[in-house]
Amino acid sequence: MQMKSHDDLFQSMSIAGLHARYRAGSLTPAQLIDAIAARTSGDDPHHAWIRPLSRDEMMRYVDALEGRDMGTLPLYGIPFAIKDNIDLAGIPTTAACPAYAYTPTVSAPVVARLIAAGAIPIGKTNLDQFATGLSGQRSPHGACRNALDPRYASGGSSSGSAVSVALGLAAFSLGTDTAGSGRVPAAFHGLIGLKPTKGLLSTAGVVPACKSLDCVSIFARSADDAQRVFDAARGVTEGDPYAREFQPPQAVTQAVTQAVTQAVTQAVAQPGAQRSLRGVRFGVPRANQLEFFGDTSYAHAFDAALTRLRAAGAELVEIDFEPFLATARLLYEGPWVAERLAAIRQFVDTQPDALHPVIREIIGGAARWSAADAFAAFDRLAFLRMQAAEVWQRIDAIVTPTSATTATVDELEADPIRVNSRFGYYTNFVNLLDLSALAVPAGLCAIGRHAGLPFGVTFVARAHEDAMLLDLARAWHGETATASPSADDATEVCSGESHGRH
Amino acid sequence: MQMKSHDDLFQSMSIAGLHARYRAGSLTPAQLIDAIAARTSGDDPHHAWIRPLSRDEMMRYVDALEGRDMGTLPLYGIPFAIKDNIDLAGIPTTAACPAYAYTPTVSAPVVARLIAAGAIPIGKTNLDQFATGLSGQRSPHGACRNALDPRYASGGSSSGSAVSVALGLAAFSLGTDTAGSGRVPAAFHGLIGLKPTKGLLSTAGVVPACKSLDCVSIFARSADDAQRVFDAARGVTEGDPYAREFQPPQAVTQAVTQAVTQAVTQAVAQPGAQRSLRGVRFGVPRANQLEFFGDTSYAHAFDAALTRLRAAGAELVEIDFEPFLATARLLYEGPWVAERLAAIRQFVDTQPDALHPVIREIIGGAARWSAADAFAAFDRLAFLRMQAAEVWQRIDAIVTPTSATTATVDELEADPIRVNSRFGYYTNFVNLLDLSALAVPAGLCAIGRHAGLPFGVTFVARAHEDAMLLDLARAWHGETATASPSADDATEVCSGESHGRH
Repeated sequence: MQMKSHDDLFQSMSIAGLHARYRAGSLTPAQLIDAIAARTSGDDPHHAWIRPLSRDEMMRYVDALEGRDMGTLPLYGIPFAIKDNIDLAGIPTTAACPAYAYTPTVSAPVVARLIAAGAIPIGKTNLDQFATGLSGQRSPHGACRNALDPRYASGGSSSGSAVSVALGLAAFSLGTDTAGSGRVPAAFHGLIGLKPTKGLLSTAGVVPACKSLDCVSIFARSADDAQRVFDAARGVTEGDPYAREFQPPQAVTQAVTQAVTQAVTQAVAQPGAQRSLRGVRFGVPRANQLEFFGDTSYAHAFDAALTRLRAAGAELVEIDFEPFLATARLLYEGPWVAERLAAIRQFVDTQPDALHPVIREIIGGAARWSAADAFAAFDRLAFLRMQAAEVWQRIDAIVTPTSATTATVDELEADPIRVNSRFGYYTNFVNLLDLSALAVPAGLCAIGRHAGLPFGVTFVARAHEDAMLLDLARAWHGETATASPSADDATEVCSGESHGRH
Repeated sequence: MQMKSHDDLFQSMSIAGLHARYRAGSLTPAQLIDAIAARTSGDDPHHAWIRPLSRDEMMRYVDALEGRDMGTLPLYGIPFAIKDNIDLAGIPTTAACPAYAYTPTVSAPVVARLIAAGAIPIGKTNLDQFATGLSGQRSPHGACRNALDPRYASGGSSSGSAVSVALGLAAFSLGTDTAGSGRVPAAFHGLIGLKPTKGLLSTAGVVPACKSLDCVSIFARSADDAQRVFDAARGVTEGDPYAREFQPPQAVTQAVTQAVTQAVTQAVAQPGAQRSLRGVRFGVPRANQLEFFGDTSYAHAFDAALTRLRAAGAELVEIDFEPFLATARLLYEGPWVAERLAAIRQFVDTQPDALHPVIREIIGGAARWSAADAFAAFDRLAFLRMQAAEVWQRIDAIVTPTSATTATVDELEADPIRVNSRFGYYTNFVNLLDLSALAVPAGLCAIGRHAGLPFGVTFVARAHEDAMLLDLARAWHGETATASPSADDATEVCSGESHGRH
C-alpha cells in the first residue's frame, strides 16, 4: 500500500474513525501499522521517541488480532504510545535514564489490559527524566519539541506521549501524572489529558516518581476516546498496594446528577447531540489568585473560556483558591521531593553522574528534608485538605487554566527550574488533595505572543468523579461545536485546535 | 451524708447502676461527688492524678444539671476522669510535662460533648509524658501503680485514667491510644478499653503524639457503658482535619451480620440475655507468631481464652500474623517517632531539659530519620496494608492477647525501654492499619508468676466496625456470665476481675 493514501488518518485519528474504516474494509490494522512504521522509523525532529517499535514488533500485536471479533474488543487495532516509565514486555524501560534501564518480561497491568482490548503499542516515548518536570526538556534524548510549533516546549513530563498523539501517529497514549505531567503537555497540544482518580489505573509496572501520588494518565483527541481507553485500562490489580476500587462519589450534587442524567438521556436519544453545562457550578479562583506570569495570551484565553462557560449556562462561583495554592506550594517547596529520592535512592547513591544535571539538582536536594519535616508537612496537608473540602460544598468542579503560561525551548534552557515551575501553578495540588482532573482544549490563543497556539483549561473534581469530568468535557466540546457543524464534534474540535499552526 | 454509706458504689460503679439509684432517690449527683471528692482530695498512692478537681470545681458541673431531665441526658451525673493530654476548660493541660502546661479556655470537643450529655469531670490523670510509652512509669508525677497490686505497673500511657476507673472513682474515663495506650492499661486492670476507628472521636484539643494516628479512647467496666460513652462522645467536629464521619463497614460478613442481628433480636426480646459468638470467625496468629516473652501466666490465660471462644461456638481461623507484626515493628523501629518530634519540635528545641529522660531519649532520637526514610516507610506500610487486607477476607475479627506480658514497677525501672516494648507486641499495628480495637477482660491468670492478676484479650476489626466489636464483647461477657449468675453480668465480671487481688 501507499503511505500517501492514508495521510488523512494522521489529521484526525480517532477510535470511532478507525473502527469505521476497519468495518468498511477501507483500512486494515496491518495497513495502518505499515503507515505508522514508515513515519516512526524515520527522523524524529520533535524528540518524541525513546524507542519506537519496529514494524515487526508492532505486527506481532496485529497478528494476535487475527480472527478476533472487533465487536468484542473495544480498542481493536487502535495504535497507542507508551511513556517510557511504563513497562511494555520485552522492550527496555528507561525513565529517560539509560543507566537505569531494565527490560521487563511482562507489561504493566494497565498496558496489558489495553493490549487485551485490542490496542497496538507503537513505541516508548520521551519524558522528563524520572518523570520529574513539566517541560519535556530534561531528557538525554533531547528536548522534546512541541508538535504544533517546534520552537516551543512540548510540556512534560509525558512529553513524547502528547506529541505522538498530536502528530496523529497514535490514537491515544499513556502518560503519568504526579504533579501535572499528564495535563500540561495536553494543554500545549490541544489534547484531552485525563488524570484519573488516584489508584483507579494501576501504577504497577511504572517507575515510581512520588509513589503515593503517581497516576497513569491518558492523552486522547476526544473525551469519548479517553473514556473508552479509561474503561479498558481500569480494573483491580492484585499485588498493587496503591490500587483502589472505583467508589461511587460521596456527594455528586443534584445539579450534576441532573446534568449528567440529561446528558446520558440525550446521548441515548440523539447520539452525538450536545450535552448541557446548564446549572453546573464551576468554582473559579478569585481574580487576584489567578496567575499568568504576565502572559496576556493565556489571560485573555482564560477569560474567553469563562465567557463560553457562562454562555453555555454554567454557573461560575468565585472560590478562595488559597488552600489549593498552599497545597501546590507544599508539593513544590516541601518534602515530597524526598519521595522521589526514596524511590530511586540506591541508584542515586551509586550512579549520581547518570542523572540529568537538573534532575540531580532537584532529587539530590531532597536529602535536606528530615522525617519530622515530612510529618509536619502531612499535618499541614491534612489541614489544607479540610479547607479545600469546604469549597466542594458549593461547587461541582473547579475550572482553571491548565498551565499559567507556555514557553519556548530556549526560554526553558535559560532558566530550567523557574520557568518549569510556572507550568505547575494550577496542577500541583490535585494529587495531594486526592482529586480527579481533566485537561481539555479551549481553543487557540487569540492575542499576544502565543496567538495561534492552543490554550487549555482543566476541570477538577473529587475522587471517583472521573466520569462526570468526561461528561463535562463532552458538554464543553458540544458548546464549541455549535460554531463547527460536524457530526463527530469532539474529535473535530480537538484536531482542529491541535493543528491550528500547521 | 456519710461517705461510708456509699462505699459499695466504688466496687461496681456503672452508668445503669448510678441512674437506678438516682431514679430511686437513694443517691444524688451531689452526694456522689461529695464521696468522690473525699477520696480524690486525699492521698494518691497510685499516682493516678495530676490534677483532681476540687469539690467546688466538680459541683459546678453538678449545678448545671439542676432541673435537667435524666431521660434526655444519657450520661446524667456520671463521673469521669480525663487523661491530662486532653483539654478541660479552665484546668491546665500538661501532658505530664509541667513546663509544657497551658490552660485551655474551652474543653476538647470530645469532653464538651460528654459534659453536654450530663457527665461530670472529676480530674486530670497521670500519663506517660507526651503519651509516649505503654508502662505508665514515665511521668514526673511518679510511677503510676496498678490499682490491683501496687507492685505492678499500671500500663500506659493512659495510666491514671485506667486506675481511676479500676478504683471505682470514675464510671469511665478518657485516654488516648496511638500505639496501645488505651488498651494495655485496660488489660492490666480488667477493664474494657475501646480504641475506636481513627477520627470518629475528635482529637481536637488533645496534645498530639503521632497526629495522624492518635485516637481518643474510652475505659469502662462494661461494653454497655463504653458504648453509651462512645455514642455521646461522637460527632463531626468542625475544624478538626483528622475527624471522620462514621461510614457503614464495607464488608461486614454474613456471619457477623447474622450474629449481630441475632444479638439485637435477643436483646430486644430478653434484655440482658446472652449474645452469641456462634459462627463468628476469629483470626488467631499461628502458634509460632504468638509471643509471651516467657510469661507462662499469660500464655496459659490466652490458651484458656481461645478454649472459651471455641466453646461459645466461635470459629478460630489460623492467620499469618506476619504483616501485622511487620507493621508493628515499622512503628516501633521506624520513622513514626519523628511525628512525635514534629508535634512538639519547638518545645523540644528550646527546653530539652524539661523532658523526662526516657522521653528525651526516644523523641530526641527521631532526628536521625530523613524524609526519604519516612516515604520509604509509608511505601512499606502500603504494601503491608494490602497484605493485611487479604487476611480480612476470611475472618470477622482478630483475637490476640492485649499485652504479651506484664511487669512490676521495679522491672520497668531497671530496663524502661525494652520491657515497655513487650507490652506493644499486639497493639502497635492497629492504628497504622486503620483498624478498630477493643480490649476486653478475660479472667484472671490461673498459673505462674502473675496468677490472680487480670488477663485481657483484644478484638480487632476493620475501620468503622466499632459497634460490632462492642457486640462481640457483650457476647464474650455473656459467655463468662454462665459461671457467675448475676443479673448485671458484664459489670459484675469486670469488677469481679478488677478486684481479684483486693
